[in-house]
Amino acid sequence: MPSNDTPSRRLGHHPKRTAHEVLADLVTSVDADLDQDHYGSGDVIEKLETRVAGLLGKEAAVLMPSGTMAQQIALRIWCDRQDLRRVAFHPTCHLELHEQGAYRELHGLSSTLIGNPDRLFTIDDLDALREPVAAVLFELPQREIGGELPQWEDLVAMTAWARDRSVRLHLDGARLWETKPFYQREYAEIAALFDTVYVSFYKILGGIAGAALAGPADVINEARVWQRRHGGNLIHMYPFAVSAQLGLDRCLGKMDVYHEKAVEIASVLSSLSGVSVRPDPPHTNMMHVFIEGDIDALRAAGTQVADESDAELFGYLGETVVPGVARFELTVADSALQFDEDEIRRLFTRLLDLAT
Amino acid sequence: MPSNDTPSRRLGHHPKRTAHEVLADLVTSVDADLDQDHYGSGDVIEKLETRVAGLLGKEAAVLMPSGTMAQQIALRIWCDRQDLRRVAFHPTCHLELHEQGAYRELHGLSSTLIGNPDRLFTIDDLDALREPVAAVLFELPQREIGGELPQWEDLVAMTAWARDRSVRLHLDGARLWETKPFYQREYAEIAALFDTVYVSFYKILGGIAGAALAGPADVINEARVWQRRHGGNLIHMYPFAVSAQLGLDRCLGKMDVYHEKAVEIASVLSSLSGVSVRPDPPHTNMMHVFIEGDIDALRAAGTQVADESDAELFGYLGETVVPGVARFELTVADSALQFDEDEIRRLFTRLLDLAT
Repeated sequence: MPSNDTPSRRLGHHPKRTAHEVLADLVTSVDADLDQDHYGSGDVIEKLETRVAGLLGKEAAVLMPSGTMAQQIALRIWCDRQDLRRVAFHPTCHLELHEQGAYRELHGLSSTLIGNPDRLFTIDDLDALREPVAAVLFELPQREIGGELPQWEDLVAMTAWARDRSVRLHLDGARLWETKPFYQREYAEIAALFDTVYVSFYKILGGIAGAALAGPADVINEARVWQRRHGGNLIHMYPFAVSAQLGLDRCLGKMDVYHEKAVEIASVLSSLSGVSVRPDPPHTNMMHVFIEGDIDALRAAGTQVADESDAELFGYLGETVVPGVARFELTVADSALQFDEDEIRRLFTRLLDLAT
Repeated sequence: MPSNDTPSRRLGHHPKRTAHEVLADLVTSVDADLDQDHYGSGDVIEKLETRVAGLLGKEAAVLMPSGTMAQQIALRIWCDRQDLRRVAFHPTCHLELHEQGAYRELHGLSSTLIGNPDRLFTIDDLDALREPVAAVLFELPQREIGGELPQWEDLVAMTAWARDRSVRLHLDGARLWETKPFYQREYAEIAALFDTVYVSFYKILGGIAGAALAGPADVINEARVWQRRHGGNLIHMYPFAVSAQLGLDRCLGKMDVYHEKAVEIASVLSSLSGVSVRPDPPHTNMMHVFIEGDIDALRAAGTQVADESDAELFGYLGETVVPGVARFELTVADSALQFDEDEIRRLFTRLLDLAT
C-alpha cells in the first residue's frame, strides 16, 4: 500500500467511518415518524436528557453542543451563586489547556491550579489552597496524564473536603463512561459525589458531537439560559441526539471489554525494551505510551509499519519533556479488538526495529 | 380530520419533514467517500466556507453552530479592535430580544438602541446618536417589523455615515438570501457595504442548523478563536454543512418565485376586510399579517379551518400593541406554492367568518 493512503485498520478509537456511513446508520435506526426537535424541545432531545439524568442519578440534564460550553456554564453558575469568581482545577484541565482562556475571556472567572501537572492532585494539594474558590473541578479520568483515576477512598475524601467548606463540585466526565471497570460502581454513585457532571457523547460513545450537563433541576434550568447566551441553543440537534442514543445503546455495555483489552495491550507494550505505559496497568480503556528513540525516526517507522501492515499504530506521536522519549495516546475501543496480542507485539517490535 | 392531528399542509415555511426524511435526504446527496470533518477542518467544512465567502465577496467565512454565536463574536472583535465596548442596533435586534442579554453577560458590551422599534432606523437616527460606538449592526430585512428593507440609496448613505466615522458595520443577514428580489443586486454587492456579514443556513435554506460569519481573513481567524471559547468549535459539523450546501443548491435560485408569491398572497389578504399586511407589498418573501378580531376566536377559527381543509394558515398568532388586532408572521417558501390565490382567499374568508 502506498504511504499516502490511509490504512484500513488502526489500533486506537473506533474504526473510521465516512460521513455517509454515519448518516446511513442514523437513517436505519431512527423512527420514521420521529419529529425534529425545536430549540431544545421535542421528544428526541427530552428522551436523551432523561436517560442521561437517570444514568447519573441527577434531577435533570441538558444536551449541549460541546463540553467546552457545558463546563464553562456549570462553573459560571456556581461562581454566581457563591458570589466568588474563582474556581480550582488540575493544571492540565481542558479549560486551562484547550479553550483559549474562555473562562477568563468570556466569563471573567479566575482559576487556581491544584497540585502538579504530572500527577493527580491529592487532599494535601487541596489543603494547600490559599484562596477561597467557588468550585473545584475534578476530571475522571485525568486525560492528559494517561487517564489516571484516584482511588475511590481518596475521591470520597477529597470531595468531602470540598463539601465541608461549601465549595461546589463539578465533574469533567468527558470519559466518565470509561471509569466503571476501575471503580466497579454505578455511574450514579460516582456522580453523587459531585453537584454537576458533564459527560460526552462522542469519544468512546462514537456520537457525532454533543455533551450533557447534569445536576439539580434549578441549575440545569439556569444552564439553559447560558446555553442560549453561548449560541448553543440550536434550532435542531437531532443528529447529535440520535447518534448519542445509539452510542449509549452500543458502547456502554462494552467498557469492561475495552478495559481488559487495554490491560492486555499495556502488558504487551511494557514488555518491550524502551517502551512504557502510563498508568500501568491502565485504569480505564486509555493509556499514554512512551517510546525511547528519535521522534522523526519513530514517525517514519510508524508510516512504514502502516504501509506494510495496513494498520495505523498511533495517530499523533508527540515529544515529552524527557529528551529522547516520545509519547502517543492510545484509546482502546472497537478498533483494538481487531488486533490480537501476537500481532500487536509483532507490529511494535517491527516499529522499534525500524526506528533504531 | 380531528383537530389534534397536524394538518398535512401549511401556508408558511417549507413543508414539515421528519428527522428521518431529512437524514435520508442527506444520505442520498452526500458523496460516499466524504470524510468527516474534525474541529472545523476538512473538505466538507472548507468547501462550504469558500462558497459562502465567494457568494458574499468576502475574503473568508467560518461555519458556526448559530447566528447567536456568530454575531456576538463579530461585535466583540470590532469592540476589541476599536477599544470601545459599545455597539448600536435597532431596538428589535436579535441580540436585544432573543439572546438573554448575552452581549452584556458574556462579552461585557453595552448597546445603544437606534431609532424606534416600530420602523426602520434612518440616517437622522444615526445622527442623533450621542455616544461613540465601535460598530453598528444592520438587519436586512428587519424581521420583527415584517421584513422591511431600507431603499438602496438610504442603505448606502447610512453605511457611508458609519464609515466616515470609522464605525464598523456588521450585517445581520439571517434573511439576507431573501433580499435579492428587492435590491436586484448580487449578494456580494450588498455585503460590500459591511465589514462582517452573518448568514443563516436554516430558515429559507432549510438546513438542519448553522450559520456563517464572513469578513476579512484576519477577522475570521480571530472569530475562530472566539468560536472555540464559545464552545462552538465542534468535533463534527458535517450534518449542518451538508444540509447547508443542499439548501444553497435548491433554494437560492427560488427567491424571486418566493417573493412573487408573497406579493400575490399579500394582495389577496389585504383585500379582505379587517386584514392588513406589512410591508405592503412585501419587500421579501415574508410579511406580518394583522387581523382585526378577538384573538381567542381567531385562534379557534384557525384550528377549525385547519380541521376542515387540512391546511395550517398560521403557526403562532400573537397580540399586538393595538387592542383587537392580532398578528402572525408569514414566511413564503415551498409550502405556499401549493396554494393558489383562490384557495387562499377562500380559507381566510372562512377564518374571518368563523371568528366573527
